[in-house]
Amino acid sequence: MKLWTGRLPGAMDGLAARLNNSLPFDQRLAQVDVRGSIAWARALGRAGVLIEDEASLIVQGLETILEEFNQAAFAYQDSDEDIHTAVERRLTELVGPVGRKLHTGRSRNDQVATDFCLWVQEAALSLEKELLGLQSALVQRTDKDWGVILPGYTHFQQAQPVLLSHWWLSHFWPLQRDRERLRVVYRSARIMPLGSGALAGTSFPIDRFALASDLGFDAPSPNSLDGVGNRDFAAEFLFWAALLGVHLSRLAEALILYSTSEYGFIVLADEYSTGSSLMPQKKNPDPLELVRGRSGLLIGRLVGLLTMLKGLPSAYDKDLQEDKLPVFEAADTLALLLPVTNGLVTTLTVRGDWMRAAINPQVMATDLADYLVKRGVPFRQAHAAVGRAVRRADELNVSLAVLPLEEWQVIQPAFADGLFQMFDPEVSVAQRAAYGGTAPKAVMEQLDQAKKILSEPAGK
Amino acid sequence: MKLWTGRLPGAMDGLAARLNNSLPFDQRLAQVDVRGSIAWARALGRAGVLIEDEASLIVQGLETILEEFNQAAFAYQDSDEDIHTAVERRLTELVGPVGRKLHTGRSRNDQVATDFCLWVQEAALSLEKELLGLQSALVQRTDKDWGVILPGYTHFQQAQPVLLSHWWLSHFWPLQRDRERLRVVYRSARIMPLGSGALAGTSFPIDRFALASDLGFDAPSPNSLDGVGNRDFAAEFLFWAALLGVHLSRLAEALILYSTSEYGFIVLADEYSTGSSLMPQKKNPDPLELVRGRSGLLIGRLVGLLTMLKGLPSAYDKDLQEDKLPVFEAADTLALLLPVTNGLVTTLTVRGDWMRAAINPQVMATDLADYLVKRGVPFRQAHAAVGRAVRRADELNVSLAVLPLEEWQVIQPAFADGLFQMFDPEVSVAQRAAYGGTAPKAVMEQLDQAKKILSEPAGK
Amino acid sequence: MKLWTGRLPGAMDGLAARLNNSLPFDQRLAQVDVRGSIAWARALGRAGVLIEDEASLIVQGLETILEEFNQAAFAYQDSDEDIHTAVERRLTELVGPVGRKLHTGRSRNDQVATDFCLWVQEAALSLEKELLGLQSALVQRTDKDWGVILPGYTHFQQAQPVLLSHWWLSHFWPLQRDRERLRVVYRSARIMPLGSGALAGTSFPIDRFALASDLGFDAPSPNSLDGVGNRDFAAEFLFWAALLGVHLSRLAEALILYSTSEYGFIVLADEYSTGSSLMPQKKNPDPLELVRGRSGLLIGRLVGLLTMLKGLPSAYDKDLQEDKLPVFEAADTLALLLPVTNGLVTTLTVRGDWMRAAINPQVMATDLADYLVKRGVPFRQAHAAVGRAVRRADELNVSLAVLPLEEWQVIQPAFADGLFQMFDPEVSVAQRAAYGGTAPKAVMEQLDQAKKILSEPAGK
Amino acid sequence: MKLWTGRLPGAMDGLAARLNNSLPFDQRLAQVDVRGSIAWARALGRAGVLIEDEASLIVQGLETILEEFNQAAFAYQDSDEDIHTAVERRLTELVGPVGRKLHTGRSRNDQVATDFCLWVQEAALSLEKELLGLQSALVQRTDKDWGVILPGYTHFQQAQPVLLSHWWLSHFWPLQRDRERLRVVYRSARIMPLGSGALAGTSFPIDRFALASDLGFDAPSPNSLDGVGNRDFAAEFLFWAALLGVHLSRLAEALILYSTSEYGFIVLADEYSTGSSLMPQKKNPDPLELVRGRSGLLIGRLVGLLTMLKGLPSAYDKDLQEDKLPVFEAADTLALLLPVTNGLVTTLTVRGDWMRAAINPQVMATDLADYLVKRGVPFRQAHAAVGRAVRRADELNVSLAVLPLEEWQVIQPAFADGLFQMFDPEVSVAQRAAYGGTAPKAVMEQLDQAKKILSEPAGK
Repeated sequence: MKLWTGRLPGAMDGLAARLNNSLPFDQRLAQVDVRGSIAWARALGRAGVLIEDEASLIVQGLETILEEFNQAAFAYQDSDEDIHTAVERRLTELVGPVGRKLHTGRSRNDQVATDFCLWVQEAALSLEKELLGLQSALVQRTDKDWGVILPGYTHFQQAQPVLLSHWWLSHFWPLQRDRERLRVVYRSARIMPLGSGALAGTSFPIDRFALASDLGFDAPSPNSLDGVGNRDFAAEFLFWAALLGVHLSRLAEALILYSTSEYGFIVLADEYSTGSSLMPQKKNPDPLELVRGRSGLLIGRLVGLLTMLKGLPSAYDKDLQEDKLPVFEAADTLALLLPVTNGLVTTLTVRGDWMRAAINPQVMATDLADYLVKRGVPFRQAHAAVGRAVRRADELNVSLAVLPLEEWQVIQPAFADGLFQMFDPEVSVAQRAAYGGTAPKAVMEQLDQAKKILSEPAGK
Repeated sequence: MKLWTGRLPGAMDGLAARLNNSLPFDQRLAQVDVRGSIAWARALGRAGVLIEDEASLIVQGLETILEEFNQAAFAYQDSDEDIHTAVERRLTELVGPVGRKLHTGRSRNDQVATDFCLWVQEAALSLEKELLGLQSALVQRTDKDWGVILPGYTHFQQAQPVLLSHWWLSHFWPLQRDRERLRVVYRSARIMPLGSGALAGTSFPIDRFALASDLGFDAPSPNSLDGVGNRDFAAEFLFWAALLGVHLSRLAEALILYSTSEYGFIVLADEYSTGSSLMPQKKNPDPLELVRGRSGLLIGRLVGLLTMLKGLPSAYDKDLQEDKLPVFEAADTLALLLPVTNGLVTTLTVRGDWMRAAINPQVMATDLADYLVKRGVPFRQAHAAVGRAVRRADELNVSLAVLPLEEWQVIQPAFADGLFQMFDPEVSVAQRAAYGGTAPKAVMEQLDQAKKILSEPAGK
Repeated sequence: MKLWTGRLPGAMDGLAARLNNSLPFDQRLAQVDVRGSIAWARALGRAGVLIEDEASLIVQGLETILEEFNQAAFAYQDSDEDIHTAVERRLTELVGPVGRKLHTGRSRNDQVATDFCLWVQEAALSLEKELLGLQSALVQRTDKDWGVILPGYTHFQQAQPVLLSHWWLSHFWPLQRDRERLRVVYRSARIMPLGSGALAGTSFPIDRFALASDLGFDAPSPNSLDGVGNRDFAAEFLFWAALLGVHLSRLAEALILYSTSEYGFIVLADEYSTGSSLMPQKKNPDPLELVRGRSGLLIGRLVGLLTMLKGLPSAYDKDLQEDKLPVFEAADTLALLLPVTNGLVTTLTVRGDWMRAAINPQVMATDLADYLVKRGVPFRQAHAAVGRAVRRADELNVSLAVLPLEEWQVIQPAFADGLFQMFDPEVSVAQRAAYGGTAPKAVMEQLDQAKKILSEPAGK
Repeated sequence: MKLWTGRLPGAMDGLAARLNNSLPFDQRLAQVDVRGSIAWARALGRAGVLIEDEASLIVQGLETILEEFNQAAFAYQDSDEDIHTAVERRLTELVGPVGRKLHTGRSRNDQVATDFCLWVQEAALSLEKELLGLQSALVQRTDKDWGVILPGYTHFQQAQPVLLSHWWLSHFWPLQRDRERLRVVYRSARIMPLGSGALAGTSFPIDRFALASDLGFDAPSPNSLDGVGNRDFAAEFLFWAALLGVHLSRLAEALILYSTSEYGFIVLADEYSTGSSLMPQKKNPDPLELVRGRSGLLIGRLVGLLTMLKGLPSAYDKDLQEDKLPVFEAADTLALLLPVTNGLVTTLTVRGDWMRAAINPQVMATDLADYLVKRGVPFRQAHAAVGRAVRRADELNVSLAVLPLEEWQVIQPAFADGLFQMFDPEVSVAQRAAYGGTAPKAVMEQLDQAKKILSEPAGK
């Protein structure tokens, strides 16, 4: 059904029509489009634009269509240019000429913007659950792996020992920020464009506050030109997705490293591993690599949308039709990456003995410097002294942990026998007891905080 | 001053040192770095790591340094690798060996993350003022240009007449969302990393809550590994900047069009125009074009940061040093674009007569369809009827506004003499009186809402 | 068919398998995958790894499969993880156990890289034709619109008059560069990875030069590690697509402007226009807007690939599987945008009278300055003199073309009566006769050059 | 010096002027700008626009200015808006009023585009040398580390043993492609815009072919509108830089991993390492991390330029001024990253014993499968058999290399005593002797090919 036969009676060029035709992707708006139309019909009824019988006839027809979509029984036709025309065409089939009154005072510009807001709201709620699931998986690992110590890294070099539980929680907090950001995105999508018309508002006495309330929005948009041209919520969604992708990629990268034979810290469950078509021995972390790789594409989707938007002046231009595909794809990607990461984390096996065995005594160097500080040596001198001891052990080709006390004292007389206790990772970890540190006491506090957050009801 | 001579006594390769040297850009952190160190010295004092005299000596030295920075009197030395070493070197010059105790229990990893948070907070507060300024300029134009009507566009084609005041306000709301987003960014930067050490926390009994409060943060970061590796606030800042850039670009694009001789709607003030080196007649909107062009680079900066972050596992890697340049550049860009746009908008001349004269009577077609609807014709038929009238006028080569009544009635008998009143733009505009529409009544409401927002004290 | 049951006998997690499963998109490699396998079977035969009967049996089976793909008669099974396993599974069904010998000495790593190269080659050849088509359309317009003069713009402001034919050709040359770049991409895709094995090469005596020749490649890749990990050709393809998208967007943007009622320079054919669901009078340039909008997404696809690649070390990682979707989507986008733009350009109507009428006499200011130069006035003074004349005409509120001679002479005595001839756009245009200029003589030369290029056989 | 005082006598707004002022970055065009002007003066002389004395006076003045730039003795003034006006201002100071004739028939639009082309040419030549240097370093390592075997990886998992020399060369070929691409960029920058005027060409009889030849260009641009608006060469340069950045990042990532204590394959030279301000033992690969991190920003710069360009119609708009900063920054970045990577690669120490010790006997699994194939077992069965042996060794908790022959024969009777020879990495590596493989014979061939390429004179 072409909606403007009066003005342009001829047919579009075939390829141009294919370019123009958004049905292949905006089908996904089917349910929210019908919900929007039901609310619009009611609003027209309340405004006296439709008489009561007309409004209820239309609403009934739309409810039938909704049911058809829910049952996957809706039959599209080749002439359906987009989801909106498909629904209106079907409505007129079902309820007759009165169906042609539905579009009164409304434009596809405000209609599609409203549909898109509703879709993003639903996607946000659904993805929030997946996020929460992954956070819970991390908290469970924190409990399960309590007491395990591994080398902590900076610059990919061993730095200081840390509790594995502390490490798991270090991935909890970025996801918590992602969840908070998602709530902000959700709120951005809760301003209703409907009633903005094509650009200038509607000339029928629609109560947009009642309409917004009926559709579950927080408020109607305050300016019709901005209402039809605003895609901030879509850009926010894609940025949210891209940054979450970065967090998942950083976790995946670490787990990929830890599952190599060189680290040997974890073993992935077979159901999250693949083999090789050529090399019989291989057990590859494909799902983790795909988490890492696909998150790169999320950044590209954000760029696509921002670049498209940047090229426009205000109000509605057709370019905006290209807003939906990146958002749909990003939501689909995360709807897969989040539960897969959850499953991966939950099912992997931790090899605590390998982790501890990997700890090079040198990583206690900071503790040794702190030991000197506590014996009155200014930190800079303490740091230099321990650095020289590390070099001295290298020269003698012995582990720092067995460098004789005399050697230590040549470098700095404040060293005494107690220094060797510093080589116990448990002692090292326990030192860092200030809030946020890796000492068991501090991590337990942190874990309680995380559990409390998970137990709170999701805000709006 | 190299901080690790004990371990690596030789000099770095010259080019590698140049690559490593961050002083050329992290100089901008000078003041916040000193503020952070003052608070750290006090915290060490409270924790008993420094005795009272040591702490006050250090604080005094740092205050002297802060004054030197404020007076631009600080003398950098070639050996200063970054702002942190420059400050510590100078401190030791000023207060002697006790200066070497300042870095106790702290790492440059948590130090620089804290500095960067503080810097972003200040940038956010300062840019918020500029944003507010531009919003005020738009509100002033709304008042000043009250009553002017121009053609509204969709698809770059005349669509429906709108109030110019409505159009100005359509650029107010995106900026309002930018302002709300900026507050979210600001809050993200108010979680303090200091006390996270290199990655595992600090082994001295620092009260991080007191420290956070002293530095004006909302709270200390809950996990040290995440504390040193988190750059979400920087990514959020760059996304905020990129989307604001999109909004400025859309406004600029529209104003560039309106200032062409083809539109002729506005005349830019001479002080916001340039000429040509070759063509004597030219008066070019260079500042507007630069607003539009430079906003493209903002998207690139966001991509740079996200791509860099995506390539890392967790905790601190040196790659993170590349976080600052994009943020500094984005802040500088907006610190220029916002006031220039403000000045441009404030000083331009509106040609209301050209705007009205440009209105093609065809843009009242929706009003004519609505007219039929109000006379009982279903919208789809009404729409088709007016479309045919448009074509008929084209065939007869007359303006739609003077198509004889008989012609209208041939197409649709419900047309009557009253239809010609619809060609008055004032009538058209006044119809769209629902909330958010372009009717003077609705726009006045909207303006009140905007003024109320501007008069509210900025939230945290 | 899982290829590594020996090592990992259990099933993958359902969602992980869905993430891992590339069949939904790598189906598009079906034909090239079979072609590659046919060549591989022959190479195994030549190397004596397969006896002649085995090789021909496999080749026959593969030819049957190719035919099934060509007829869309190939039946995928749920267990087919990717196109390679689907083909091998089917082959074994068709020819029995000998099918299990096909994968000897080969890995999916070199196989998929080879398939992808072949696919990109085909896409390049096919898109080159579309590019050529659009270039031809521009050349035809150049011929057809010969003699029409329009205002040329810089900074969106009228600058100097130009021939419309010159303007059309200004869009020919960027496409010519795109075509040259496409040939470079094509050559990049003509280095064959096959025979690189999983990463280390193949241990069977395959003659890779003969194999390359058999498959139509220019040469085998010189290093097996690079052979399986190289995606430069894909990145080059996406950059080519993004820059072509920029060129199409710039053309589309100009045509959108020219088709507004404010410019009125062109009228789009109805078959490349759409109407509005709400506004009966609208005739919108939707296809042009979609050309402009969709080209933004192309930049995003390039970013997605580059970001994914950047996060990897060398050789093959599974992340590379994410390379194909962006390339397929970019090729599909351009396979639509190029012919639609072609059709648009070919069918639009030029309104030469509107173009000429739009020319503001001020755009001849440079000619007036040049006129003074030719009468001995240094250019800077000449430029300033004409600038003052423009202001004087503004003050007197008259067109520059009718400013009395005395006024001119007050400003600069070298002005004489001949100056008024400069206001003829034909005279202005004819002045710019140096190579590349807008004079008819120069444009005719340029057109000949363009036609000569189009008539040359496409290079490799 | 403002060039359009005649038309717009007032001053620009201060901030707008700062936004407009490009001198802070276009200073870098100083030398090429003067070279362009010298050639232009000569061309004006040849065309008879300047008499011989005028032309030589101007040329002499410009040569003095060039010398001033070379000596860093040029004195900028606050009123210099950009490099072009600075030069013209100084010229007039030096040679008097005749200086005002230089700009005859030229615009800053074609002037800056020409300058930029010249600058990119020089940058390309200079960066090509650095690229060549890094390629040579890799070839030297190939020679030096001959015979060392390390585990090759796919999916970050050990896959098959490879020669370290083969691995070094796998980083040579991407750089070779980068070098070939750079030559294409260079050629793109060798089409001269000068003589395109502001947009329509020049009205003086300039011989643009002679001018191009004088300035060392290959040809003049064929269309003046395209000549001033074309930035393809800049986009190509940035794409080249981004992809080279990806290659450097992939190499850096691998070296970072190999320098961890977990891999232990290489030791970085102290002059390419840094320590920690807190942890005395640390030796960090900061320069490698900066190579990896900064390459992410290169992708962002490409996006910035493409996004800016995408938002424009054709010909010259001021937005184009934002083209230079990303290109300058990218060139500066690579001028640092390439030699630093070169130094790093050249000075690192390879620990061949650690590499060999790290090889897990399982990585010979493909050799074992190939062994079965050579004894007549179809590859798929052979693959499955070895997979089962790997699992069996895991069950028995023994290394695959010592799994008793009986166990092998239970799985597949074709196994015989010779299988144990397959566990020798030397044997494994030597098998992969086809072109491009890791066998010493094939790598030697490859090395010869690489050396031959390096010894060829650089093409144009």
